[in-house]
Amino acid sequence: MPSPDFVVRAPYVVTCDDAMTVIEDGAVAVRDGIVAAVGPAGAVPSDGAELIEAAGRILMPGLVNMHCHAGDSLFRGLVENLPLEPWLETVWKAERAILDPAACRLGAELGLAELLLSGVTTVMDMFWFPEETVRAAKALGIRVATGGIFFDPPGMDGHLADRRLADAAAFFDAVEDEPLVFPGCLPHGTYTVSPEHLRSAGRLARSRGGFFSTHAAETVAEQATVTGRYGRRVIAHLAEHDLLGPDVVLAHCVHLDAAEIGLLAASGTHVVHNPLSNLKLASGFAPVPALLRAGVNVALGTDGAISGNDLDLWLAMRLAATLHKAVTGDAAAVATHEALAMATKNGARALGASDRIGSIEAGKAADFILVAIDKPHAAPLFDPVAHLVYSAGRGDVTDVFVAGRRLVESGRLLTADVAALVAGVNALRPAIAAAIA
Amino acid sequence: MPSPDFVVRAPYVVTCDDAMTVIEDGAVAVRDGIVAAVGPAGAVPSDGAELIEAAGRILMPGLVNMHCHAGDSLFRGLVENLPLEPWLETVWKAERAILDPAACRLGAELGLAELLLSGVTTVMDMFWFPEETVRAAKALGIRVATGGIFFDPPGMDGHLADRRLADAAAFFDAVEDEPLVFPGCLPHGTYTVSPEHLRSAGRLARSRGGFFSTHAAETVAEQATVTGRYGRRVIAHLAEHDLLGPDVVLAHCVHLDAAEIGLLAASGTHVVHNPLSNLKLASGFAPVPALLRAGVNVALGTDGAISGNDLDLWLAMRLAATLHKAVTGDAAAVATHEALAMATKNGARALGASDRIGSIEAGKAADFILVAIDKPHAAPLFDPVAHLVYSAGRGDVTDVFVAGRRLVESGRLLTADVAALVAGVNALRPAIAAAIA
Repeated sequence: MPSPDFVVRAPYVVTCDDAMTVIEDGAVAVRDGIVAAVGPAGAVPSDGAELIEAAGRILMPGLVNMHCHAGDSLFRGLVENLPLEPWLETVWKAERAILDPAACRLGAELGLAELLLSGVTTVMDMFWFPEETVRAAKALGIRVATGGIFFDPPGMDGHLADRRLADAAAFFDAVEDEPLVFPGCLPHGTYTVSPEHLRSAGRLARSRGGFFSTHAAETVAEQATVTGRYGRRVIAHLAEHDLLGPDVVLAHCVHLDAAEIGLLAASGTHVVHNPLSNLKLASGFAPVPALLRAGVNVALGTDGAISGNDLDLWLAMRLAATLHKAVTGDAAAVATHEALAMATKNGARALGASDRIGSIEAGKAADFILVAIDKPHAAPLFDPVAHLVYSAGRGDVTDVFVAGRRLVESGRLLTADVAALVAGVNALRPAIAAAIA
Repeated sequence: MPSPDFVVRAPYVVTCDDAMTVIEDGAVAVRDGIVAAVGPAGAVPSDGAELIEAAGRILMPGLVNMHCHAGDSLFRGLVENLPLEPWLETVWKAERAILDPAACRLGAELGLAELLLSGVTTVMDMFWFPEETVRAAKALGIRVATGGIFFDPPGMDGHLADRRLADAAAFFDAVEDEPLVFPGCLPHGTYTVSPEHLRSAGRLARSRGGFFSTHAAETVAEQATVTGRYGRRVIAHLAEHDLLGPDVVLAHCVHLDAAEIGLLAASGTHVVHNPLSNLKLASGFAPVPALLRAGVNVALGTDGAISGNDLDLWLAMRLAATLHKAVTGDAAAVATHEALAMATKNGARALGASDRIGSIEAGKAADFILVAIDKPHAAPLFDPVAHLVYSAGRGDVTDVFVAGRRLVESGRLLTADVAALVAGVNALRPAIAAAIA
């Protein structure tokens, strides 16, 4: 084996491989952005390469956030304490006034910086001007899954619905050689996009080998609208238009009946659970234990910062592990290893990228993070997996590597000037506030 | 006005007074551990006293955690992924093997250090050997509300039930001159303590001007046990024995009927909502919006680290603000100012200490914290209250003051050697693990 570029040693390496292997006093060797070796420290020699001693920290895969609208971070906390409908109307008013390409780039940088600092190394993002999201992701060094938006009403970009297919196709061309980008098609939802446009988006995604992702079954109102309009519930409607399958990622899936869970399982469709968004927007409780029992792959998402109000996948993981215990009355519902898998390898699987990301295994990308365990809330440490799920948080992430490149060091983002970014966003406040005045 | 000892200036002072006043570019002057003045920076001169510039931070009252078992932090993460009953049996086995006074002191130091680092300045704690909790609290500088435990079965301290009243009375004597201690009586619950002993505890607490706190209506099983044994539901049982009132603090109150909510409201009894514990132990969802509507004072708690697995009151606040939206289907349920009040002044009120703590007002104790707003998840900042409730977290707390004494500075606890504490606790791991082997 050729010498690695560098080796990281840590008291625990939580691999998130299929056996959820935890290596005490472990090490990971990295060469050309790939994990060259992982194992007990003694079995992973540094051969004179740089040795990073991650004392007092867990080494684990970077988190995979499978549903986000990073650019919406610009509207974080703008309106609160209203029922859903007037709240949404107000937020949309601000979006329509503010969202040009430059604002979307700024919002994306803000959201992606937050994600990296909290240990997310791959994010699926649905937002206007996705090419701006790609620019922000490249500048920061994070992996991003995104692509063309489909939305029948006039969008923030002023484009008409019939132009969207061309935009989406152009996106695939534009990112063909971008190693950090997973391209796909992201129609908004079955209640906002016609069956014809949904089908076009699906055909385009499949013809280009990309993913297809949409909001599905988030609210009772959405189910009622779709059922009223098409005579079928949301998941059946997607099935009718050939929009289920192992290349399909459905965000939310809160309101499902047994037949819909069966359709998702039989088709290998992936579900993204966004527990905090579902709580704050009063959407309800996704049937996660039933989905897991049916064999559906469930990943995790933060949703956007207007329904959060932050992009904290640690909180999503904690809620995924606890919320369903109270809902089902079963304190054993959703085990620790299941919750950790949702935040890591299940996301990779939903992206069709299990061979590259989501776990620390030789031959996969060197996307990993260091999580401090030297604070009171980490002691005693009996089980690193339980600790990560039930006690760790974004504030514990000290270092982040994507493809072997260190993007966060000792809590500092190396690829952006965070102070300038925060100041730049706050400088937009008057304009945003004026938009809803 | 005499010169202050020091003045802190911050871009926002969130006072948590009754009007939830937020002062932009504010300052707080401290003299003899008391807030001498609070207002716009220009109106609070430092008069040559030390000036602390809290740039990029919010100054707010220290958090008040009204239900905790700090010593139980020793068993954090020891057992997971079991149904409630076998899980509890295993944890209790470990507790019985480990909990002597020295272990309780260590566990209390661990838990209280975690609390201080996260911005909690007052905690109500129920645990064995409460005098050890007091020693730990004095060493660290945190305010603690605690006192004698009542439990009919043999306790961890080997004392019989009939000795507990004398122990509890001795506790009041022992802490008479401790300025940071709120003494009370803390029977475990109505299903573990006989009516006679509950009554004795209540009489003792009232005769000494202390609080009475117990677990109440946490689970369906508890309601069934109490109803089966006494022919009354839990809150009615407490009322029957004169154990409701403005000096009574009931932890949990998850399973209440309308009559019980009426009894709580009419008596001025305080409720402590512990949302994360209620989720993880599969207890259910407390009827917080109904309690608020009825006029009941609702405070927040973390519960212990075996049902958490940490002591994060920020998470409790976030859940208090979001969980009930999904339960009720109303996105306006529990407003931001209500959630922030639960984490601060409502706790002070439950302790009968509204004149001293819970908000930043002249004449009250200088218990306050600084919360960073210079990170991506704090931008843009439209409303500091919404930010604190929906986006801030324990990782943002940089400084903590209790009675004007700085206990945490730039994230470092000044009153304990955290590294030694964490190492000391981890050294106990083999003994704890052996206890359940």
